[in-house]
Amino acid sequence: MRKIYNFGAGPAMLPEEVLRQAQEEMLDWKKTGWSVMEIGHRGPEFSELAARSEADLRELMNIPNNYKVIFLAGGASTQFAMVPLNLFTDKKKADYVDTGIWSKKAIEEAKRYGQVHIAAQTAHQDHLAYIPHQDTWTLNVDADYVHYTPNETIGGIEFHWVPDTGDVPLVADMTSMILSRPIAVNQFGIIYAGAQKNIGQAGLTIVIIREDLIKDPLPYTPTLYSYKIQADNQSFYNTPPTYAWYIASLVFAWMKRQGGVAEFAKRNKRKADKLYGYIDQHKDFYINPVLPESRSQMNVAFSLLDDTLTDTFLREAKKAGLYFLKGHRLAGGLRASMYNAMPEAGVDALLNFMEEFAKQHR
Amino acid sequence: MRKIYNFGAGPAMLPEEVLRQAQEEMLDWKKTGWSVMEIGHRGPEFSELAARSEADLRELMNIPNNYKVIFLAGGASTQFAMVPLNLFTDKKKADYVDTGIWSKKAIEEAKRYGQVHIAAQTAHQDHLAYIPHQDTWTLNVDADYVHYTPNETIGGIEFHWVPDTGDVPLVADMTSMILSRPIAVNQFGIIYAGAQKNIGQAGLTIVIIREDLIKDPLPYTPTLYSYKIQADNQSFYNTPPTYAWYIASLVFAWMKRQGGVAEFAKRNKRKADKLYGYIDQHKDFYINPVLPESRSQMNVAFSLLDDTLTDTFLREAKKAGLYFLKGHRLAGGLRASMYNAMPEAGVDALLNFMEEFAKQHR
Repeated sequence: MRKIYNFGAGPAMLPEEVLRQAQEEMLDWKKTGWSVMEIGHRGPEFSELAARSEADLRELMNIPNNYKVIFLAGGASTQFAMVPLNLFTDKKKADYVDTGIWSKKAIEEAKRYGQVHIAAQTAHQDHLAYIPHQDTWTLNVDADYVHYTPNETIGGIEFHWVPDTGDVPLVADMTSMILSRPIAVNQFGIIYAGAQKNIGQAGLTIVIIREDLIKDPLPYTPTLYSYKIQADNQSFYNTPPTYAWYIASLVFAWMKRQGGVAEFAKRNKRKADKLYGYIDQHKDFYINPVLPESRSQMNVAFSLLDDTLTDTFLREAKKAGLYFLKGHRLAGGLRASMYNAMPEAGVDALLNFMEEFAKQHR
Repeated sequence: MRKIYNFGAGPAMLPEEVLRQAQEEMLDWKKTGWSVMEIGHRGPEFSELAARSEADLRELMNIPNNYKVIFLAGGASTQFAMVPLNLFTDKKKADYVDTGIWSKKAIEEAKRYGQVHIAAQTAHQDHLAYIPHQDTWTLNVDADYVHYTPNETIGGIEFHWVPDTGDVPLVADMTSMILSRPIAVNQFGIIYAGAQKNIGQAGLTIVIIREDLIKDPLPYTPTLYSYKIQADNQSFYNTPPTYAWYIASLVFAWMKRQGGVAEFAKRNKRKADKLYGYIDQHKDFYINPVLPESRSQMNVAFSLLDDTLTDTFLREAKKAGLYFLKGHRLAGGLRASMYNAMPEAGVDALLNFMEEFAKQHR
């Protein structure tokens, strides 16, 4: 068992069990004699993997039958364009909720294809960020869709509720919180997520889309950016990122063995409660910039009251086996990302370190 | 050492040395304590990998300084759209050479963005396919670019010369022959290649582009499809497919240790000469459908004179450790793909099997 912990925001820590299995199977996958990465995607071996991984994800997330699951190459940034290109009607009007850097990236890309209305933005109270309640939002009933980012990795902000957009399809970039807690898929039109946090390795994106939203995209859309083409071809229109898909399949199987999403939700809540609880009790040394109601369970952004100590904190943390705690380059400070693969022992180790560090440097 | 051989067209066989190194480093890459797939792409560890792999590729292919190398997520099919979206000027006119199914896919996508002229097509002589000489082509001097596919995996057709397009940039889909033999990069405007044949695993595409061709794309181009954005950000505009990039870096290092592209060119010629030589000497049993001057070194398409024996051939070949010899679903018959990772011993084993099979079933 590894005794070191990776708090990086992504590409992020993976379950050791998954890595060991990948290691074991590297030269001989399922007695084929080959590595998964050497296997043609249209053969029976990979097709079986593809079907099983989709079935596992459907089971884990309880995905209704009227939703398609698409496995795509690339990161979630592909979806910043694919969503407007595929969902815009003649109106080309969408509402976006801006809660941070990832929302803004989605907004900038959508603006290139149509009219974007910002329905709501992160607000602040006593310098603490929070997500404004929906009764303050300005939603358009005739929008083609509403887009939001349930969890913002950089600001460490998370929705703990799902917006109600009535008949307007709700699109969610769940990259950094998918599979971290149960969600009701039928509240969403599209859910998408890059894999490199809770699913596996970078270079794979999963799209869960309600069937009635699958239609011909805007005319100049690249073929690979068409949900319809990708769905009609079961994600095999061209060669998919087979090894990344394989790692995802191992993660899904691992999650099932561990007790599924409900179990991870409990663990994630415990981990987050511990870390936020500690920070709140040590405000003379550590600061979290988010109101409790909007705090992210996955990404805890924090900083030192005396930020000249940040580099020392990072250096000493690494010596203690606590890696990649540096805040995003656009935000500074510190950040502890605690996705599903982060064991509670990792958070305990971090708290011990923070306690020691505060004692020494207070 | 594995004693089995994978003749699949891709995702294809990888060097055993590379797989063993990946296996060994799966849980601890370069003493980081982490798998490469758990490492953030902007940290020093991965940045070093990215820089080194680009330097190795530049050395292997002798890429001039006025060319950028871009590592992109997804397969070469992304380029079918990116090439026209980025190279079309106001004229929106391009010449395409149609030598098979991959050419046709590129043509279909380009037609969606502008005017495509077919400058040449595969021809036939006595039922044998060949690539017509350039003096029969109809090239437009005012085309924005000329696109061709130096090697067609499905038909088993390959150019053994480079078209001369004067001042019109030449764009080549080298997916199935990159790094198989020396090429003069400065004869090309853009070279692109999906990784799953001679470079590594599926989900990565490499683009080598002459700097003067990097400009703002057509206005509706998705941001990730802009060569300019990708080049300006050193392929780090968003999270790249880090593990696929890592595998590519191992393959490049392996190629250098083996003697570089010139050495592989010799090996590939020997392998191809052996197999074609054998087929030509046994025309009473095996058929190759391509004129010698246009035969692919990478993908040998062949069939049995009595094609009712094809399934038996495939079944018995697998028992002999010779895998994935089935022809492409659109072509039928048989196909032996022999990329750089296929050792000569694999081709010898195939020849022995073919000899035995012919004896038994003649």
